[in-house]
Amino acid sequence: MQMTELKNFMVQVNEKLEKGLSHYIAKLHAPQILKDAMDYSLQAGGKKIRPTLLFATLHAFGQDIEKGMATACAIEMIHTYSLIHDDLPAMDNDDFRRGKPTNHKVFGEAYSILAGDGLLTYSFQIIAQDSSLSTDQKVRIIELLARSAGPEGMVGGQVADMLGENKHLTLNELEYIHRNKTGKLLSFSAIAGALITEATSEQIKILEVYAENIGLAFQIRDDILDVEGNEELIGKPVGSDEENLKSTYPSLITLQGAKERLHDHTQKAIQIIKQLNLNTTLLEELAELIEVRNH
Amino acid sequence: MQMTELKNFMVQVNEKLEKGLSHYIAKLHAPQILKDAMDYSLQAGGKKIRPTLLFATLHAFGQDIEKGMATACAIEMIHTYSLIHDDLPAMDNDDFRRGKPTNHKVFGEAYSILAGDGLLTYSFQIIAQDSSLSTDQKVRIIELLARSAGPEGMVGGQVADMLGENKHLTLNELEYIHRNKTGKLLSFSAIAGALITEATSEQIKILEVYAENIGLAFQIRDDILDVEGNEELIGKPVGSDEENLKSTYPSLITLQGAKERLHDHTQKAIQIIKQLNLNTTLLEELAELIEVRNH
Repeated sequence: MQMTELKNFMVQVNEKLEKGLSHYIAKLHAPQILKDAMDYSLQAGGKKIRPTLLFATLHAFGQDIEKGMATACAIEMIHTYSLIHDDLPAMDNDDFRRGKPTNHKVFGEAYSILAGDGLLTYSFQIIAQDSSLSTDQKVRIIELLARSAGPEGMVGGQVADMLGENKHLTLNELEYIHRNKTGKLLSFSAIAGALITEATSEQIKILEVYAENIGLAFQIRDDILDVEGNEELIGKPVGSDEENLKSTYPSLITLQGAKERLHDHTQKAIQIIKQLNLNTTLLEELAELIEVRNH
Repeated sequence: MQMTELKNFMVQVNEKLEKGLSHYIAKLHAPQILKDAMDYSLQAGGKKIRPTLLFATLHAFGQDIEKGMATACAIEMIHTYSLIHDDLPAMDNDDFRRGKPTNHKVFGEAYSILAGDGLLTYSFQIIAQDSSLSTDQKVRIIELLARSAGPEGMVGGQVADMLGENKHLTLNELEYIHRNKTGKLLSFSAIAGALITEATSEQIKILEVYAENIGLAFQIRDDILDVEGNEELIGKPVGSDEENLKSTYPSLITLQGAKERLHDHTQKAIQIIKQLNLNTTLLEELAELIEVRNH
């Protein structure tokens, strides 16, 4: 598994994405400290899996990736706002993320809350103002984004995750959390690509199944890395889930069971995406990357 | 100033609005505690000035107010999220609002942050899913709402307000804060009404000037009430601005100067809105109500 095509693609699109994000922050008419706080976390590195997923979907359909730039920036802003709020003292109380001080450690809690609120709100503005989309596309993308990120998606999943702390969860309950907390925004990223390319509803269904599988694979890999990952690479102490009595795939179905399930989801994702009969090498390699990633 | 027509109208639309809000929360597929936390602050009373402004604009244009119900609920959700986040310990650290314990006092900080995030995100979903609007209307309303509520509006104004704490501000700086922190969402409420009725750009300009003036009047009245209001009615200690060394209209231009300015803005609003040559009694009375309100 060289994943050469994907790796080259990621270097290329990440550079464009970073320029896009900087552009959107620079043009904001807002107090400088707010722009700085928003920018700080946007520029804090990270895997950019979600924008890559959107761009790889556009690539599969032979669409210019520039057409997805605004939506990709919006996704990354929503993902980033969720990390800023998650790190707050009232939530996970994390001092570091990706090896850098968390947003509230640099700007203070009040500005962090507002930077998160600002990123979330701005993401909808960016899509609504995107001149490369039709009004129909904008409404469909905004509706799905809000559903994926809000109470029926990421925010709901985060609440379910908190409710599940220190409890023994069933596998179904664990999957509900992951499907919402991380899965729906990942799915959105693939489906938004399809909406931008005017894909058929059959093609969108295939992408949904693909995204659902890589979303669960992503989370299972996260749980596995917490057991046997490299602390320096993953940027947090190994074993923290067990210490916090957190229900995880390894704790519910053993480490070996989790690895098998991870492999199953990855293979399912690859098999289904091939049914598009398009140039899906990048999407296949992305599924593989998620299976073997070490951070 | 009896404002009979406005008062009857407010009773009628507030009842509908509360039903609308309950409906939107009830139909959410989300963890119950999240729905409860969102609902708690939505049902906490309040003047509902913003939805009233939208409904009164629709009324002036002879439009059925039901057509603005989704947008009105979205506005109230955004206003409510901003109060929940403002009340947090890291921000204003308020234990009570409108005589009831603040959201985080009931649900804890983590759920309050998420309830705010949920309300903000859901408001865009509600507009995007509103079947009574055209896609063009949805995009224009969402774009303006995000601009009015985000870094270039309310969130930016909140940051500017925090930056101005314990500083002597000029009148221009004070107005920048108010125009953004409260003014833009008030303006949005009037303009959204115009967008829903397909008003001309000239009519929208008139509504903008009207809304700008009542927005500033609203804030000046707030400052005056902090000097000479009734603690029980306004629900917070009188004199808190002076104690916190906050720059206000009375502190910058004297209490008498503030009252004159309040009256000027109110009269300007009433004069300009009459130029619509529509049935604007409610909008005129709303300007008067803002001038004389005691909470």
